[in-house]
Formats: sequence, C-alpha cells, structure tokens
Amino acid sequence: MARGQFYVFSLGLGTLGSLCLLFMIYWVQHWRGGFAWDGTVLMFNWHPVLMVAGMVVFYGAASLVYRLPQSWVGSKLPWKLLHAALHLVAFTLAVLGLVAVFSFHHHNRIAHLYSLHSWLGIVAVALFAGQWLLGFSVFLLPWASLGLRSLLKPVHVFFGATILILSMASVLSGINEKLFFSLKNATAPYSSLPPEACFANLTGMLVAVFVVLVLYVLLVSSWKRPEPGLLTDRQPLLHEAE
Amino acid sequence: MARGQFYVFSLGLGTLGSLCLLFMIYWVQHWRGGFAWDGTVLMFNWHPVLMVAGMVVFYGAASLVYRLPQSWVGSKLPWKLLHAALHLVAFTLAVLGLVAVFSFHHHNRIAHLYSLHSWLGIVAVALFAGQWLLGFSVFLLPWASLGLRSLLKPVHVFFGATILILSMASVLSGINEKLFFSLKNATAPYSSLPPEACFANLTGMLVAVFVVLVLYVLLVSSWKRPEPGLLTDRQPLLHEAE
Repeated sequence: MARGQFYVFSLGLGTLGSLCLLFMIYWVQHWRGGFAWDGTVLMFNWHPVLMVAGMVVFYGAASLVYRLPQSWVGSKLPWKLLHAALHLVAFTLAVLGLVAVFSFHHHNRIAHLYSLHSWLGIVAVALFAGQWLLGFSVFLLPWASLGLRSLLKPVHVFFGATILILSMASVLSGINEKLFFSLKNATAPYSSLPPEACFANLTGMLVAVFVVLVLYVLLVSSWKRPEPGLLTDRQPLLHEAE
Repeated sequence: MARGQFYVFSLGLGTLGSLCLLFMIYWVQHWRGGFAWDGTVLMFNWHPVLMVAGMVVFYGAASLVYRLPQSWVGSKLPWKLLHAALHLVAFTLAVLGLVAVFSFHHHNRIAHLYSLHSWLGIVAVALFAGQWLLGFSVFLLPWASLGLRSLLKPVHVFFGATILILSMASVLSGINEKLFFSLKNATAPYSSLPPEACFANLTGMLVAVFVVLVLYVLLVSSWKRPEPGLLTDRQPLLHEAE
C-alpha cells in the first residue's frame, strides 16, 4: 500500500520536476532570447535554468534516493553512492549556473552578490558544498565510528532540507527580480501581467509546490528506509572495495 | 535533558523572532520614513512589518505551542485554545498587512497581485485562512470523530509547515523587491550595498534562519507531545463548556 502510493507520488513528483525545468527553459527561450556562453545577457540566461536544475530538481531527486523501496533491502552502499553522485551532478549544475551569472556580471561591470536573492543563493550553495563534503567524509569513507554517524545523521538530514528551502527562496526571489528587470521598460510592464509574467510566475509557483512535496516525501515515515542492522549500516566505501 | 534543551532553544528562538521584528521596524523607521495610515508610501510601510509579525513571528510561535512541556500533561484543550488564539492574532496581523498594501496600491493606482512575491503571499494567506477554519472545525468543535481527527492531523501539520515556508519565500522576495524599488534612483543604489541594503538583507537572512529553526523544533521528535489517551485527545470545546 505504502509502496504503491510512493510510486504514484514519485511519478507525479518526477513529472512536476520536469515541468519546472521545461518551463524555465521555455521562458528563457521564448521571451528572453535563448542561450549563449559569451558574457552577454544570453549567458546570464543559463543562470536561472541551471540553478533550478541543480539546486531544486536534481537536488530534490537526489534527496529521495533512500525512499525508493528497492534501497531498503541489501547493502546500503550502492544507494549511498547514487545519493552522493546525484548530489554531485546537482552541485555541478549549480556551479555552472553561478559561473554564468558571475561571468555576465564581470563582462558588464555589474556588482556581484549584493541582493538578498544572491545572499540566499550563495549561502545555499556554500552549505551544499559543506554538506556534500561532510556527507562524503562521514557516511562514505570508512573512518567514522557508528556513534559519529548516528550523531551526524539528523544534522545531515536537517541541513539537507534547509538547503532546499533556502534554494527555493532564492529561486523565487530571483524570478521575481528578473521579471522586474526585464519588463521595466517593456510596452507591457510586469504590473500589467503580460503572458511572460503569468508564465514565469506560474513557473515559480510550480517550483514552490515541487519543493514542498519533496519535503513531504522526506517526512512521511512509512516511506522511510527501515533502519538495517548495525553491520550493514556501517558498511563503508573502502571496506567494500577491499 | 530534552526539556532543558527545549527551553534554551526556545529562548534563542524568541530572541531571534523579536530581532526579526525589531529589525523590520528599524529599517522602515530609519530609512523609509516611518509609518502612517493614510494611503501613502508610509502606509505601505506597515505591510512588511505586519506580514513578518503575522506570517512569520506570531505564526511560528503559535505553531510551537504543543512543544511546551507544560502542554504535555493534563487536558489538551487549553493548549488548543492558545494555539488557535495565537494563530488568530497572527492572521489578524497578516490581514492588516494586506489592507496596508492594497490601500496603498488603490490610492496610487498601482495594480494589485501581479508579482510572484504577491502570488506567493496571497496563496500563503489563503491557505492560512483555510487551515485555521478547518483546524477550528475539526480539532476544537465537538462533531469530528476520532478517525477524522487522526486522518486530518498530519494534513494539518503538513499545511502548517507549508504555509510557513511559503510565507518565508514571500517575505524574502518582498524585501528583495522593495530594495530594488527604493534604491533605484538613490545616490547609493542597491548594487553598491549601502547601509540600508546591508541591514535589510541581514534582516531577510534572520527571517530565513528563524523559519528554518521553527521547522526544526517542529520536527525534533523528543520535543513532541506524547500522544495522550483517546479520551483526553478527543476532548472538544463544547463538552468542556458544558
């Protein structure tokens, strides 16, 4: 029952995550001139798409690896590797998204990191980097004791959710800010809600719904991996490789 | 141990919530000309203060009523009443905050509800209204069966957290948007990070930390009220009044 519900929910969540990404791409492609990697505003355009892809969609998917019922039996190690690898993909996408905006600012002599949007975003990415390194060191490498792992696991889960919430706030304030910038001197300003504004607002709302539903899946206890025996739980990367 | 930790944590959280509110007031008073209730931008100034007070600080405090160890023993009813009453205060503050911005828009012929910030905010307030009415009808009035209450309790908790997360995103995108508006033609624009921008950004970051910590307290299982016997749990408002 719980398993069937999980799959239906995951299918919905996968569809929603894909829609978030497709809508971001469509917004930029259709209304903002598309993409380039040349320091112009077309390079900036990669920023919203890559940040949503990395810090929201891939991040969300990577967070839910241990909710897959297949991960509940047998060794936890392959799932730990998948969790770490997907988060590394997410992090890489986010770093590319930052390169896009920093490069655009640099080429156009715009100050870096002044808005609240950027403060939220850079804190989320910095926490993500720390979270990944700490997770890798403690939960994958073999040196950490079971006591340390047990101590840090709730911290890891808490910061995992925190980073997603901060990312969401950053993405939404970013979409809001971008629409004010782009539609400032337009014939149809933001306040007249032209189709672009409706579409981008809707995309922002989809991102919010996606994040809230990912947090929901993380919290539903019947979808959590039952805690395995101590031995399996401690199985570290290097022991497996020996 | 858990009780002592809870009190220390609550003291910190209370201080942080008060700081969020005081910082918002200081921002508006020191840099934005202060407050009035006259349809001008000074009336708008109530909007950010009242929304943070209602949708974040009071809302957060009201959410944590059942985490007070005093609420764990004896009848749940007084705590339900306190939970509902504090949320009603929070909701009233939020409604006044909406009156402030709608009235400002009306007097200055500015369109209502066009930005993503406003969409997030109005959805959060609408969900809050629904949540309060449903909570009052199901958990305080006597008609609901234990089965219905058990079914709706996780829904109530989930939407409670969702509303707080959406409120946070709305507050942060609102501060960001307001700084772009207010510092547009200033001698020191937002991008040069004048003291006002630093201060308001910092206030936004404090709001984010406050919300994340409230969610943390809600989730820590050792701080949750142990489920009492069925009879106490069902104790409805009107039975108590008889």
